Amino acid sequence: MGELAALFAPERVAVVGATDREGSVGRAITENLLADFEGTVVPVNPKRDEVLGRPCVASMKEADADLAVVVVPPSVAVEVVREAGESGVQHVVVITAGFGETGSDGAAREEELRSVAEEYDLNLVGPNSLGVLSTRRGMNATFGPDNALPGRMSFMSQSGAFITAVLDWANDQGIGFKDVVSLGNKAVLDEADFVSEWGDDPETDVIIGYLEGIEEGRKFIDTAREVTQETPVVLVKSGRTDAGAQAASSHTGTLAGSEQAYETGLDQAGVIRADSVQELFDAARVLESQPLPENDEVAIITNAGGPGVMSTDAVGDSRLGMASFSEETLDAFSESLPEEGNIYNPVDIVGDADNARFEEALDVALGDENVGCVLVLSCPTAVLDYEQLARDTVSLQEEHGKPVAACFMGGARVEAAADVLEEAGIPNYFDPARAVEGLDALVRFKEISRREYDDPTTFDVDREVAREILGRAVERDEPRMGVEAMDLLDAYGIPIPEGGIATDPTEALSLAEPIDGDVVMKIVSPDILHKSDIGGVRVGVPNEEVYDAYEDLVTRARNYQPDAEILGVQVQEMVDLDSGVETIVGMNRDPQFGPLMMFGLGGIFVEVLEDTTFRVAPVTETEADEMTGEINAAPLLRGARGRDPVDVDAVAETIQRLSQLVTDFPAILELDINPLVAMPGGAQAVDVRLTVDLDELDVEEPKEKTLTEPDQ
Amino acid sequence: MGELAALFAPERVAVVGATDREGSVGRAITENLLADFEGTVVPVNPKRDEVLGRPCVASMKEADADLAVVVVPPSVAVEVVREAGESGVQHVVVITAGFGETGSDGAAREEELRSVAEEYDLNLVGPNSLGVLSTRRGMNATFGPDNALPGRMSFMSQSGAFITAVLDWANDQGIGFKDVVSLGNKAVLDEADFVSEWGDDPETDVIIGYLEGIEEGRKFIDTAREVTQETPVVLVKSGRTDAGAQAASSHTGTLAGSEQAYETGLDQAGVIRADSVQELFDAARVLESQPLPENDEVAIITNAGGPGVMSTDAVGDSRLGMASFSEETLDAFSESLPEEGNIYNPVDIVGDADNARFEEALDVALGDENVGCVLVLSCPTAVLDYEQLARDTVSLQEEHGKPVAACFMGGARVEAAADVLEEAGIPNYFDPARAVEGLDALVRFKEISRREYDDPTTFDVDREVAREILGRAVERDEPRMGVEAMDLLDAYGIPIPEGGIATDPTEALSLAEPIDGDVVMKIVSPDILHKSDIGGVRVGVPNEEVYDAYEDLVTRARNYQPDAEILGVQVQEMVDLDSGVETIVGMNRDPQFGPLMMFGLGGIFVEVLEDTTFRVAPVTETEADEMTGEINAAPLLRGARGRDPVDVDAVAETIQRLSQLVTDFPAILELDINPLVAMPGGAQAVDVRLTVDLDELDVEEPKEKTLTEPDQ
Repeated sequence: MGELAALFAPERVAVVGATDREGSVGRAITENLLADFEGTVVPVNPKRDEVLGRPCVASMKEADADLAVVVVPPSVAVEVVREAGESGVQHVVVITAGFGETGSDGAAREEELRSVAEEYDLNLVGPNSLGVLSTRRGMNATFGPDNALPGRMSFMSQSGAFITAVLDWANDQGIGFKDVVSLGNKAVLDEADFVSEWGDDPETDVIIGYLEGIEEGRKFIDTAREVTQETPVVLVKSGRTDAGAQAASSHTGTLAGSEQAYETGLDQAGVIRADSVQELFDAARVLESQPLPENDEVAIITNAGGPGVMSTDAVGDSRLGMASFSEETLDAFSESLPEEGNIYNPVDIVGDADNARFEEALDVALGDENVGCVLVLSCPTAVLDYEQLARDTVSLQEEHGKPVAACFMGGARVEAAADVLEEAGIPNYFDPARAVEGLDALVRFKEISRREYDDPTTFDVDREVAREILGRAVERDEPRMGVEAMDLLDAYGIPIPEGGIATDPTEALSLAEPIDGDVVMKIVSPDILHKSDIGGVRVGVPNEEVYDAYEDLVTRARNYQPDAEILGVQVQEMVDLDSGVETIVGMNRDPQFGPLMMFGLGGIFVEVLEDTTFRVAPVTETEADEMTGEINAAPLLRGARGRDPVDVDAVAETIQRLSQLVTDFPAILELDINPLVAMPGGAQAVDVRLTVDLDELDVEEPKEKTLTEPDQ
Repeated sequence: MGELAALFAPERVAVVGATDREGSVGRAITENLLADFEGTVVPVNPKRDEVLGRPCVASMKEADADLAVVVVPPSVAVEVVREAGESGVQHVVVITAGFGETGSDGAAREEELRSVAEEYDLNLVGPNSLGVLSTRRGMNATFGPDNALPGRMSFMSQSGAFITAVLDWANDQGIGFKDVVSLGNKAVLDEADFVSEWGDDPETDVIIGYLEGIEEGRKFIDTAREVTQETPVVLVKSGRTDAGAQAASSHTGTLAGSEQAYETGLDQAGVIRADSVQELFDAARVLESQPLPENDEVAIITNAGGPGVMSTDAVGDSRLGMASFSEETLDAFSESLPEEGNIYNPVDIVGDADNARFEEALDVALGDENVGCVLVLSCPTAVLDYEQLARDTVSLQEEHGKPVAACFMGGARVEAAADVLEEAGIPNYFDPARAVEGLDALVRFKEISRREYDDPTTFDVDREVAREILGRAVERDEPRMGVEAMDLLDAYGIPIPEGGIATDPTEALSLAEPIDGDVVMKIVSPDILHKSDIGGVRVGVPNEEVYDAYEDLVTRARNYQPDAEILGVQVQEMVDLDSGVETIVGMNRDPQFGPLMMFGLGGIFVEVLEDTTFRVAPVTETEADEMTGEINAAPLLRGARGRDPVDVDAVAETIQRLSQLVTDFPAILELDINPLVAMPGGAQAVDVRLTVDLDELDVEEPKEKTLTEPDQ
């Protein structure tokens, strides 16, 4: 158990603001607590002697509680929390609303609350929370209408109303919980804290949640990574779509990070993300009750061919494969199944199958070591006793210890059988696709729990040079930088073409001379974004034309935009685009997750085809390798259609080095290397654009230890 | 009503093979028919005087029936069907199994059955069918355990077991049907026939089905197009995935067409394709009971912010948009909602909302002409009576005539309300995503029902020249053709570069001379597929080098593959690839749907990025235009990133002309124009490859009237 143990299993709970008043929140909570709590409930209310028959104390100081639930009006809530802190309570749940969710006065009040919590080192839930409940000791410290059934899922939600809906539904379905937390405004404790707590809780087998935002992305990733090596975390994070993000932002009042960052960050955190309530609970129920499969191959045993085909489609949509049976299995099926049957997967044991034939087929399939899990699929027939089939399924599942999903199709005929199955932790669905999705969640979690997270590589770089180059932006008071910052990449070991920036024609010539072959020349100006459009780029310039080309480029730029600041002309080695593939490596800084790295196909395809992939920095070698393999155009990099494969390791190293750069310098707000030309022998950054936070750079020294450790 | 009216509403049904024997199919059907049928049941069995108390006749000739249900053994089934035909019956349901599904003997028997049916012009269902039922006159001519409740959906299934499962489930859910057909082996009547029949049936509001294959693709498209202008058709077509297709093929024993052809064909047919059983019924229930929205904008009215955000995500996933309210609506919400609420969409009427506030908000939203449909979303609270909310929802839906979806979240608290809603045809879901998907199905069907199908354009082409060119393949006894068939494209008006095929160096030179600028030269040989790899392509050849280049190309080809048949060297005008976009236009012939046209991004991207789109030919102008706009790279064609837009009309015309060519010549099995270079001023086919069915070409004259009319 973690440090929040007493939040969920306190000895004495003080309800500050407890009251008998009908319809009040203070009464609802006190009643809920009094109903089943194994510990002591202490009403706190200076105006009353007793509440609901329990003696009342005047203040927290007299309560001697280890958990305080605060239901007083907002104007006095902060003071009450301070008293709680003074009384030595460590855990506080603030039900009271009227904080950050209500505008600037509320936000100020929430800030006060946070600082009081910090002063007294309080583990504070809320404010604006429905409360907390834990079935371990029967504590329902919420003002919702329902208590939860006991179970092994723990559930957090940023919406209190959603908790009331879920509990009503779950009680009906026989689904139970260990702990339930309404996160409220998350002034102190947030989702990462509960993931961490429940990760340490031997009574929590699955962590589920509904979130509209994540407070600190990197903290969440690092926490959840560790927890999900053992305990599955399944979350709905809403605001997935543009419309949803806008609604989330207006609901919680906080600036939403990009969906791209959430999608990437949640995946890196090992979270199974559900897109809907149905997906959330379908996955959670299976993860709570079924073992993980040894392999990803499923056997489908069915008495009906059509639904067998439908189920196979669902397998095709999932991470699962259709198991190929061993010779022994095929022999056994050949012997026991009628000729019209199908001994291959999906196994059709035919509509006249009785319970004995079904049981034997299941036993054979579960015994095949090529089979990781089994879907039991059945349509009602006159010769089949569904309840018996359910009992056989349950006992064979236990005997073989492999995960089993059930799709006993039907209505009234299925009810009793479904009860038997669900009692044993095998959810039954009418739709085979949902049963298969359950097995898919097991495979997904198996993959997550076996991930090995390496530390990011720390390359030997020249941080001082990088700092000096970024400093030029401050000197010029101009946040945007272009090719003039190519040396920034060089300082971090990212290969750039030979050349440099000349500030007069003679310098241009002396830069060009040592370069083998013709050169590329580009005007350098932060004020001219689309250089090609104004004739600001010259390709294939022989040495003898460099001098004139310099003057020509500068003249064109001046004519085009007389007030443009011109930093010079870049003279660069020609990069052979024909043998290479143009890629892009970029970063933009997300408010929740920090630097979000991007890799994709470059050139005009970046914008049109959006063939890109993302990771939250710092990016490890494994992650960088994954990125180069994830884009749709990955086969191009690896040598499709008889082309020479490019050096993907060099690309992956560039991603990591850029990751190190943007982690070292939080002042870099966004940066694109476009194109990074990936070639058979290496990779070269041909152009760069970045934006610097001038204020941030001014104050912040590069940190000595810059990389976030995975265990932080 | 269509010509199958008497199949579903006969006066007298003969059961050939009726019997009292316990557990037999003949008894089950007779019992089911006797249960509720309003007409007369005539058992036919020469060995019995009566069956289940009904007098039995010896043969069909004595039955005087208008529908025969055949449950005799397979050995006599064909003979019985012949007798039925002789007796003047028009409709026959063959329950008997042991036909095409059982191997070559069975297949021969099925062929016999088909020819008897043809001889007597019988509308024959099956063989290998569970039977047919219709609630109109209480006729259950199936051997399943359940009858259906009356309703306004008609349902066909290629799996009989799936029907038994669905009926058991639907009866439990209160979902009813008009007609239900187990299609069996589809020896005569197939899915298109029932779509057509139910399209004409005023008592069928929605057609649903489970299919593993479609017999005749083009017939199905043409039939369903017409029906879906009025009546929604929702289908699960399994075998979507590779695994599923394999399972379907082993289940039904028929060669499955490509999933690509099914996906394309079903969409062109106006079918709403469901991927799972849940999707099938969720869509069907809404389409059965709710009106179509006037516009695609939804208003969400909720008493809980979090679920409001989740629902907005579901809207973001759908075809729906979030409605922007009129000023009047916003004013009304401002007046009636508390300050913590949200007057914008999703409208948060806050957790303390009572029924009056909910009702008013719904009324306001439904009254806004910017709102096409409404999602009523609610979490249980102490101040809200769910049943009353359900009644209000139902009456407001009726009053405003706009579609409404409901997500009353919860369990036991929702039951009574859900009954009220479902009674009125408003399905209630725990998961807001499913409620939104229901509205999405309405919008999808609105789009389908408003489609205007144009006839394919018939271009003026030179069919005789085309025939002559294809004939060369027969002469050479070589099904594959390459650049030597460029004139085939020219004959159908598809622009090709200037040039031709030379068979000696002098001819090469005389082909090159009239061409402006340098030329491209390529070896022409059906035996050399990858010409570039062997140095068989020369780009940018000036006139003075053409003679030598000819000899060089031929020498290289001979060295590479001494036995290769060399048809000559192609001399072609250079096409400027820089200003153009390489695309591909292709066709392959699908066993079910016929010529499947493909359009996509060309070059190396075809294989790697698979940026392609498809249509079943003949392709109309509208469809060709859609194709050029559907690929991911479409913005490139239309001039992304400051490039000049290419002539997409020329591309669309090429697609149509190729569609006409492959429709005219069924002998063309596959054909790729790769690349078709799309340029600002037009499009040019630079290379072609095709495969010809030599036998087909030998026998078939091009048809006089080649285009399938949409109303066939």
